[in-house]
Formats: sequence, structure tokens, C-alpha cells
Amino acid sequence: MRPFMDRDFLLSSETARHLYHDYAAGMPIIDYHCHLNPRDIYDNRRFENISQAWLGEDHYKWRLMRSAGVEERYITGDASDYEKFRKWAGTLELAAGNPLYHWSHLELRNYFGYRGVLNSDTADEVWELCNEKLKALPARTLILDSNVRALCTTDDPADSLVWHRKLSGDQGFPVKVLPGFRPDRALEIGEAAYLDYMERLGGVNSFAQLRERLEERLKFFLSLGCRVSDHGMEAVPFVRATEEEVSAIFARRLKGIMPDKSEEDKFKTALLIELGHMYHRFGIVMQLHFGVIRDNSSRLFRELGPNAGIDSIGDTVSIKDLAGLLDALDETDELASTVLYSLNPGDNAAIETVMGAFQDSRAVGRIQHGSAWWFNDHKQGMISHMTSLASEGYLAGFIGMLTDSRSFLSYARHEYFRRVLCELIGSWVENGEYPADEKALRTIIEGICFKNAERYFKLD
Amino acid sequence: MRPFMDRDFLLSSETARHLYHDYAAGMPIIDYHCHLNPRDIYDNRRFENISQAWLGEDHYKWRLMRSAGVEERYITGDASDYEKFRKWAGTLELAAGNPLYHWSHLELRNYFGYRGVLNSDTADEVWELCNEKLKALPARTLILDSNVRALCTTDDPADSLVWHRKLSGDQGFPVKVLPGFRPDRALEIGEAAYLDYMERLGGVNSFAQLRERLEERLKFFLSLGCRVSDHGMEAVPFVRATEEEVSAIFARRLKGIMPDKSEEDKFKTALLIELGHMYHRFGIVMQLHFGVIRDNSSRLFRELGPNAGIDSIGDTVSIKDLAGLLDALDETDELASTVLYSLNPGDNAAIETVMGAFQDSRAVGRIQHGSAWWFNDHKQGMISHMTSLASEGYLAGFIGMLTDSRSFLSYARHEYFRRVLCELIGSWVENGEYPADEKALRTIIEGICFKNAERYFKLD
Amino acid sequence: MRPFMDRDFLLSSETARHLYHDYAAGMPIIDYHCHLNPRDIYDNRRFENISQAWLGEDHYKWRLMRSAGVEERYITGDASDYEKFRKWAGTLELAAGNPLYHWSHLELRNYFGYRGVLNSDTADEVWELCNEKLKALPARTLILDSNVRALCTTDDPADSLVWHRKLSGDQGFPVKVLPGFRPDRALEIGEAAYLDYMERLGGVNSFAQLRERLEERLKFFLSLGCRVSDHGMEAVPFVRATEEEVSAIFARRLKGIMPDKSEEDKFKTALLIELGHMYHRFGIVMQLHFGVIRDNSSRLFRELGPNAGIDSIGDTVSIKDLAGLLDALDETDELASTVLYSLNPGDNAAIETVMGAFQDSRAVGRIQHGSAWWFNDHKQGMISHMTSLASEGYLAGFIGMLTDSRSFLSYARHEYFRRVLCELIGSWVENGEYPADEKALRTIIEGICFKNAERYFKLD
Repeated sequence: MRPFMDRDFLLSSETARHLYHDYAAGMPIIDYHCHLNPRDIYDNRRFENISQAWLGEDHYKWRLMRSAGVEERYITGDASDYEKFRKWAGTLELAAGNPLYHWSHLELRNYFGYRGVLNSDTADEVWELCNEKLKALPARTLILDSNVRALCTTDDPADSLVWHRKLSGDQGFPVKVLPGFRPDRALEIGEAAYLDYMERLGGVNSFAQLRERLEERLKFFLSLGCRVSDHGMEAVPFVRATEEEVSAIFARRLKGIMPDKSEEDKFKTALLIELGHMYHRFGIVMQLHFGVIRDNSSRLFRELGPNAGIDSIGDTVSIKDLAGLLDALDETDELASTVLYSLNPGDNAAIETVMGAFQDSRAVGRIQHGSAWWFNDHKQGMISHMTSLASEGYLAGFIGMLTDSRSFLSYARHEYFRRVLCELIGSWVENGEYPADEKALRTIIEGICFKNAERYFKLD
Repeated sequence: MRPFMDRDFLLSSETARHLYHDYAAGMPIIDYHCHLNPRDIYDNRRFENISQAWLGEDHYKWRLMRSAGVEERYITGDASDYEKFRKWAGTLELAAGNPLYHWSHLELRNYFGYRGVLNSDTADEVWELCNEKLKALPARTLILDSNVRALCTTDDPADSLVWHRKLSGDQGFPVKVLPGFRPDRALEIGEAAYLDYMERLGGVNSFAQLRERLEERLKFFLSLGCRVSDHGMEAVPFVRATEEEVSAIFARRLKGIMPDKSEEDKFKTALLIELGHMYHRFGIVMQLHFGVIRDNSSRLFRELGPNAGIDSIGDTVSIKDLAGLLDALDETDELASTVLYSLNPGDNAAIETVMGAFQDSRAVGRIQHGSAWWFNDHKQGMISHMTSLASEGYLAGFIGMLTDSRSFLSYARHEYFRRVLCELIGSWVENGEYPADEKALRTIIEGICFKNAERYFKLD
Repeated sequence: MRPFMDRDFLLSSETARHLYHDYAAGMPIIDYHCHLNPRDIYDNRRFENISQAWLGEDHYKWRLMRSAGVEERYITGDASDYEKFRKWAGTLELAAGNPLYHWSHLELRNYFGYRGVLNSDTADEVWELCNEKLKALPARTLILDSNVRALCTTDDPADSLVWHRKLSGDQGFPVKVLPGFRPDRALEIGEAAYLDYMERLGGVNSFAQLRERLEERLKFFLSLGCRVSDHGMEAVPFVRATEEEVSAIFARRLKGIMPDKSEEDKFKTALLIELGHMYHRFGIVMQLHFGVIRDNSSRLFRELGPNAGIDSIGDTVSIKDLAGLLDALDETDELASTVLYSLNPGDNAAIETVMGAFQDSRAVGRIQHGSAWWFNDHKQGMISHMTSLASEGYLAGFIGMLTDSRSFLSYARHEYFRRVLCELIGSWVENGEYPADEKALRTIIEGICFKNAERYFKLD
């Protein structure tokens, strides 16, 4: 029996250990997609206790607590931080096989030096230890200790980016904190508050002007170092229409006339193509996050709002539409480097093969299958994703892990990913499926851990 | 090489063997969903020979024999029981990797003490042995020897439950045999015999009265200890309609006017919500079995009728509709504890995440992903199901295995499941992914094998 | 650590090695579905260099090179064969986990005796070695050295089969080279060139005559030993219509009036049923290849035409339609032996179970789930396919591997498949899940490698 989560956690072979300790572990981190609050970084936010740092916004943990039968009062309710922590410890205790078990213990080891097991018996000792250590672990320290070189936040085009501007002028913090351009609200033409949002963009009176407004905002983002855009969607829209049709749909919406489903898809398709071409022109990456159903429980949504742990994997993504959208972007040779994040693991194989049809020499792995996303960022999800990518495509060109997180502690996920990666490739070498070629192995591992992302996002 | 199916079958590590032999093996069985005939239990049915016990109604075996090229005469036809058994032995001989290979040999070991291999050479010796032993193995003995505490049959609301009543008065048999409420025929408004069925329910002249009739029947079932309802469906219906619309659809059906597809879905959605609320009110569990295509071969259906081994996994289930139905039940906070059995393993991940959106403190694992069902109840299916459940949810709260069977021998499937479970969790401990914490491991294993189901179905 | 791709490549246990070396390795090959050019066989084509043999038509390799960022000039462009080979070597160097890594090295070992690793450093030495050896390796030698007994090409019904005729008269070449009947162009009623194709068939003025023409052609194919038909399709069409409707749709098409989608599906369904009945009548096998999206990138399609490495797995196949089509063929008891090749691995389980509903005694494994096809013919794809087939059906009856290839070197894929097969079944024996019964194991392995296909395609 191997010890619980020791130095060689998840590394079962000599080669895996060598690849991890000698190549992967020392690589810096580029967190090219996260939801950290830039103000917290600028302010160097401090956390009063481990519940605030761990449970405050982590809907992964909320879901698990509900599944374990914990009352909502101890999750999002008015129980004390200490009570919530104890309930979390009691939940985690039996959560065998859940990635939160591993992430939590990696965070306890890496940031708090706690090498024991968190459970009901140890909850008090962990509570005391973490709260004491947190005094010396404000946001910037957590980022620096994690060896982060750059991180890309997720921001609305209408955002003033005030904290990014302040950070860009702050010589004392060597980590690049770059804005990410996420114009979901400009695409969601069916939303009740859409016209308010048009006002926030400075007033828009035509589809052509919307495009201009977004381009202006994008240029502003670029001036602060933006390297990525991002889009979140349930399905991938793909209904072609003429410029006239789209302009008319938009004009009607400005007058308060809602589009039907087909008109909405025409509008979204057209705007995605316009934006995609912009991203190509300005040389930044297009990220597409699809396959999620948001806010499944109306009851909890009423009580808690969005990001309450009530989202799920969806099944309305059409691979044919995805291929169609990529083709529409590519037919004029204006397809930006694009990262596809799919939530349904059953789509992995199809996505690798669609990607293969649009690769070209402008970048190694120009079309990427983004890291096993959200509900898939567990050991099995990562293995399935990387095995599929390697089997159908070019794993060596993969840009690797990101956190997608709201927490400053979640850089431990990079360690988790790197261990899974080294175990996987190590197993191929041990099994005689890939040669023990030090140069090639080092290139692959360092590439996937850091160098590929650095090159892909032009952060070198 | 490890010996063929010995005491440590499927248990490759010290921890796996410990968990199985010391915790899992001794746990009683709660078979919360099966298709046993309660009359057979009351009558303490005896089987003349192993073909009758094994092949009489087992369409799993029929399918495998057809795949191996056996003539229908030896499957469902007029060949003798002995001839059929020999054909079955010849089929099984080469069926490497099929769960029937394992189940059959577990049954031979557990009930007949046969530790050899069944094949063409041994068929006669096994035939003699089993037929001799069967003389002392009537239905009740098989159940008692299997350490069953309770079993829930599957019954139509119109059923008189005469055998359940007799059994409930029988002091000599300590196993609870409880009826399961399965009102499929009340939902299948499009069936030709629907009005006949309304007569069987005592005559129904409105949707409101249908609801009342079903509630009366449910109360009768409850008086005999019923703890579960059950619904079988190809897809999950989810089209909302007003009470008026639904009443009108039903009223037209009473006059012989068939609903169209959309009306049928409106009716089913409405009745499922009504029934779901009832199950919640009376504190019983709602089971949903979906994703099956019934009776694919018209030719064999004409010859053999239903349950002939001609069903398959379907692909018409919409995860979005499933989420919608759960939300409709939950929005008034009247969602019963619900078990989702899905037949398409590609839906596993999506289902775990939909469940996560509806969990709450009324039960540990209030929404369950039911045991790898039917075509998935093989080793790989169980591993995939439990890995997915653990990765996205709370495996420790899982209610574990059932038989879903028509055979008194199939309790061996619980042993199969428990071995797979202990191997899986044992591998995590051996691999340093979960601590070797005896208390926690015992809680998890005993919970999944028995105690979780006992609590979930209120059978303690 | 095991050596890189040595004699025991992929064979981790004693049993696996025994099964492979003693039973599998010596079996001849029946390549029942490939895209070899029969003229090349008749002419005993010679290759000037390894680029021509390897890279000339291999869109698998093209895709991988694009993913690695290689310029199109070095893929399908005007770079020299030597330059292209060097780019390929540089791509392969880091392609860990990709089946091309293994296939390429197996081919280097088997045909060229090269036991090293191909990469940028060794590219020149491999180039020289292979080109030298190729002088003595014309097409027929490659086939004979691969121990091929029979191969079935893929041919249009209108084809003159001139090379098959010449080959059938050639006593000097002992390998059967048989035509495969692939009438896709007769089904694609929506294609612009459809009427031209009707001319090629000799002029067709009604649906009834189309059927006759195809039957005439099929008889001609049969006279040259044809044993298989084949159909390629994105989705599986299944919309029933009367003979009158279908005749009218066809008559309108002859007048230049295009069918709509529903009419197209009615026509295809009807013609597939007619053809299926013919295949049954003449005792040949029906192959259905479905689930592919062709030519995703319009831009590359304009530049390179079809088979440019721009296809992908699709998601528009309906399992219910597949079951419906099989039922339509079977209801009159005229379902031919049928091989289902599905491209989306997420459909594996559903397909095994649909098959199970249509098996009967006319053949062992009368309905087959064809070898993990195209994007799935890697190690994990083969394991998933065979595990699924074994779990839901009768693996012992499987007809095994084919090449589906345009290359005379790709018989190495049979070796790859056989190693995966022996490792899988060997692991079951080693793990005590199947007995170490020499007779049974030999029957299973020799069957899947060769004998099942020989019997299924009536090539003995």
C-alpha cells in the first residue's frame, strides 16, 4: 500500500516520478482562464478564516455538502464560519473518489503545511492551523507562492478594468494580471436586460454599431494586455443569415420586439463570426465554453441566484453545428486560435476529430480541446480527455491546465493535473509504448505544463 | 495467474480483500427493485431442473444464445429442458468477458456448491448436480440463504396484491416482501387498451378522478408496506400544460380520441408531477427507469411477445427534459426521494450533475443514480457508474445494488457488485488516494452494501 | 520498464504473450474491407520512396502534421518527398499516445527491419533504409509477406472491375482480390451529378429499373467472387413510404426535381431495404458505415477535394432509426448478415444491444459490431469496442480486424489489433475472470483473428 497523498501521489512508476519531480513540478503556471477578482489581487485581500477562503464562493463544495445531506443553513445560510467548516470536514470525510478530496488535501499540504487527514476528528486542529497561517497568506502571497507567471481574468466588455489598470501600473507585483474579454451579455439578445446592457456599452443603434462598440472595447482590453476572449453558451448556435436579416433582427430588438429562437441563433451566429474575425485580426485566442445547463433548480435559484451549485452538463450541443461554426469562421481564412471546452465527456472523441479538420500551421495545436472542464476536472476526466486527445490528435501541443476558479488556493489543481499527466505519459514509457527519450519527454512535459500556453497566448 | 473465480475473485489487493471479506460479504441484502413473482414466494415454488430455474424467463441468456448462433428451438422453442441446458452450456463456454459467465458461475458456487467450469464437457455433470440440489432449494430457501432482509416487487396499481397480503400474514417467513407501485399503464394514454385499464382501476371519468383512484390504490399499497414507486419510459416526458388542457386531453381520450405526441407528453408530464407529489407526501421513493427501446424486432415480438430479449438501449432521453421534470417537481418543494436509472452509459456524467442540482438535507443522496442498470450491470458498467458517481457526487451515500430480476438465483449479482465495489475503493486506498481509515472505510462499504438502502427506503 | 515496442509489445502477461505468439501471430489475414487499388495489385506497383508509400494518400498522417503546426506545403503541397518525410519524422517524434506512432514503428519493423525510433535525428537513416528496401517490396510482395488470404476492395456498381477480372485470371498470385459492392452514388439522390450516374448505370427510367440495374451489377460482382456490400452514410435513414411514393420521388428526380430531406430519406430507406433483401438472397454481407461528417473545412475541400483529412465523427445518427431499419429488413425475415460500423464511440453500448435484438441462428454473430472504425482504431478505441462487445454480446463470434486502408503497408494494423486482443483476453485469464482453458482460448483467439471472418464471408 502506498502512503496517503505523499510526495509521489498518483505517480506509480519510476518514469512518472521522474517526469513529475524533474520536469513538471518546477514549471511556472499560466492560468489563462480564471474568475479571480482583480480587486482582491490589487488590495492583496486577506481571509479571516479558512471557511471564507474555502467555502465562501465554492459551489463545487456546496453541491457535495447537499449530496451528503447537510442542511442549507450550514452551506449558504447563517451558520457561523466555524460551524460551516465542521460540516464541510464531515462531508469530506467520506467523499472517497471525489476530486474535492484531493484538491482540499493538496491545498492543506501546499499552503498550510498540514499533512494529516481532514475529518470530523481533526476539523478543529485544521481550523486553528489554517486560520493562523492565513494571517501570512494574503492573495498576492498565495499567487506568488504558486509560481504563477500570468493569469487571465474574465471580464465584461463594459467593465472599466479599473483594477487591471492599477495592477498594470504596480511595479511591486511581478505577475501579469490580464483581462479576458467575455461578451456574453452582448450576445444574449433574448435577455430582458439586453437594452440596458446596450446602454452600458455607450448606446447602440444598429448591428454595425454594436460591432464597432465591441471592437472599441476589445482594443481597450488589448491595451491592458488582453490575450483571450471567452464565450459561454448552452448549445453552439449555427444558423446563417444575411447581414440584412441580422441587422433587422437587432433593430427590432432595439424597439423591444423579442427575437424567436431561430432569429436569436441567427443573431448569435453572425455576431460570433464578427467577433471571431476580430480575435483573428488582433491575434488573440477565442475560447468557447459550451454544453452547460444553468440554474436547474428554480427554487434554489430564487433563493441564491446564479453560481449556486445548481448547474449541470447539458446535451443540446450539436457537433455538426460546432463544425459548421468553425467552418464559417475558417472559410475566409479568419479563424482565430480557438479553445473548445466541452462539458459532456461523451463528446470528447467527436471534438478531437472536428479540431483535426481545422488545424493549420499558424500555431501548434491551433484548435485546442480545452482542459477537462468543470464537472470533468477529476482524475478520470483528465485521463479520458488526454487519452482521447492523444489518440485522435497531438497531445504534445496541448496548452494544459487552468483553474477556472474563484479561489486563490486552487492553483493546487495544476499540481493535480501535472501528476495525472506524468502518470499517463510515464505509463506509456514504462509499457514500451513510447521510447524513454529524455529530450522528447522533457519537451512534451514542459510544453504541456507551461511552454505551450506561454507560446499560444503570446505571453513570452 | 490468479485462480479462476476463487474466494478472492475480482479482489486484487489486500485492502480489497479485507473490505470484501470483513465488511461487505456479511451484509444482508435489501433487494429494493425486482420482478419476482410473490406467488412463487408464498407457494415456496420448487424447480424441476436447472433449465427451469435458469433459462425459463431469462432473456439475458436468450440473447447470448442467439448471438452464438443457437437455434430458437433450443431457446424459447420446444426442445427439452435438457437439450436447452446443453445449448446454454455450449454458449457460455466461449462467452469470455460477458457478465453471464460470472453470474452463472457465482450461482453454481453459491447455491449448488459446484466449483468447476461449466462447458460442453461438464454440462451433464452440472445438470445432474443442480437438479439434485434443487430438490432442497425452493424459493424461500434461496431467498433466506441469500441473507435477504426485504425485497420490493413490481406491481400494477390495479393488482389485488393477494399474495403480498398472504405473505404479510405469514409469520413463518421473516423476509419482508413488499409491493412496488408501478403505474405505467395509467400513464400510457396512447395504448389501445387504455380504457380497459381505466375500467380495471374501478372506472374513471376525469383526470381528477384518475388522480384519486391512483391515490386510493397507493394507500392500499402503503398499507402493505410499500416503500417504492416505479416508472418505465423510453424518453423522459416534459411538456408543461395547464390543468385544463390536461383534463381536456384525458376527457377526449375517454371518448376514444387519441392524443397526438405533444398531448401525450403533456398528459404524462402532468400525471408524473401529480404522482411525484403523492410519493413525496407519503414519504416513499420515486424510481424512474428510462432510456430503453422495447421490442426492436417485430418478428420476434409477434412470435414471443414482450420480454423476449429484443429490447435495447435508446438514445431519445433528453437531459434537459429530465432536469426540467425534476425542477417541476422541486419548485414547490415536493420532490420525493428519487432514483434515476439510465440505460445509456454515455449519459452517466450528465445525470450525476443534474442530480447535484437537486440534492438537499432531507436525505443523504436524496436523488440517486440507480445501480448500473440492465445492459450495464457488468463489471465495466459498474466501475464506470461508480467512478462517475464518486467523481461528480457522493458515492458514500449510494444505495447500492438491486437484482431487477425474475430469478431466485440472481442474488449472486449482489456479491458481484460488492466485489467490484471493494476492488474499486480498495484500489484508491492502495494507491494513496484515500486514507486507510478503518472507521470511514467500514462506514462507506457497509453503507453502500446495505445500510444506506435500509435508511433510504425506511426499512429499519 | 519494458523495452520500446519489442517482441512482446502490448503483451504484459504470460497468458497474453502465449495467446499472441502461439495462436494469433500465425493466423492469416482476411482484409474484408479496404480501399486498395486493384490495378496497383495487378501491376505489382513499386514505390520510389517511403514518402510515396506512406504519405501519398494517408490523410491520418496529414491531420497529425497539421495539428503539429506543419505547413501545408510539406503535407499536400509541392515540397519534395524528402522534405515531406523529414516533416513527418519531426511530427511523429512527439506524437506520444497516437496510434500512428505505433503503426509507423510496426511498419518499420515488419517491412523494413528497422528496430530503432523514427525522429528528426534518425530521419535520414530511415529514409535511406526504406527506399533501398522498397526496391524489393512491390505491392504483391507486401501483401504476400503479410500472410493475406483474401482482400475485399471497395467498388462502385458501375465499375468495369477490369483489374479484378485480370487478377481472377492470374494464376501466379494466390491471394483472392474480390470486389466490394458499394452503391453510395445510387442512393445519393440529392447529388447534382445523380442523373449522370444513372447514365453510367446504363440508363434508368424508374425506381423498379434502378433496382434491376443494381441487381444486374451485383450479379456481375458476384461472378467475380464478391462477398460484401458496403454503404457509407452520415446518419441512418429511416422513413418508411409506399412503393408508389418512392417511385414518384424517383420519377421527379429523373425530371430534375430535387427531393426534400424527408423525400430523400424515404428514397434511401426504400432502396436500402431493396438492396438489403438482395444481399440476403445472394448470401452476401451488408456493411453499414455511419456517423461521419465529411469535408468539414470548405476551404481545404476547395483546395484539396475529398479525403483530405477534414472529416470528423458526427452526432446525427439515431439509434432508434438504426433499430427501425434493421427491423424493416428483418420483419420479412430477409435481413442479411450485417456489419455495423459506428464512428461515435459513445454509441457502442447502444449498438451492441440493438444487435442483440436481431441475432439468430443463421450465423454466429450474424449482426456484427464492426471493428473500432477510423478515428477509433487506436488502442483505447479497440479496448472500448471489445469490452463493450464482450459485456453486451458474444465477443467469441467477432469477425475481427480489417485495414480500411489505401496503403499496402497497413497490414501492421492487424498485428496491433491482435496484440490488443490477446492482452485483453489474457488479462481476464490472469485475473481469474476466465479459465485457462487452452482449447477454448485457442478457439476464441483463432476465431477472432481469422476463422470467424473466413466463415462469415464464406471464404473457406
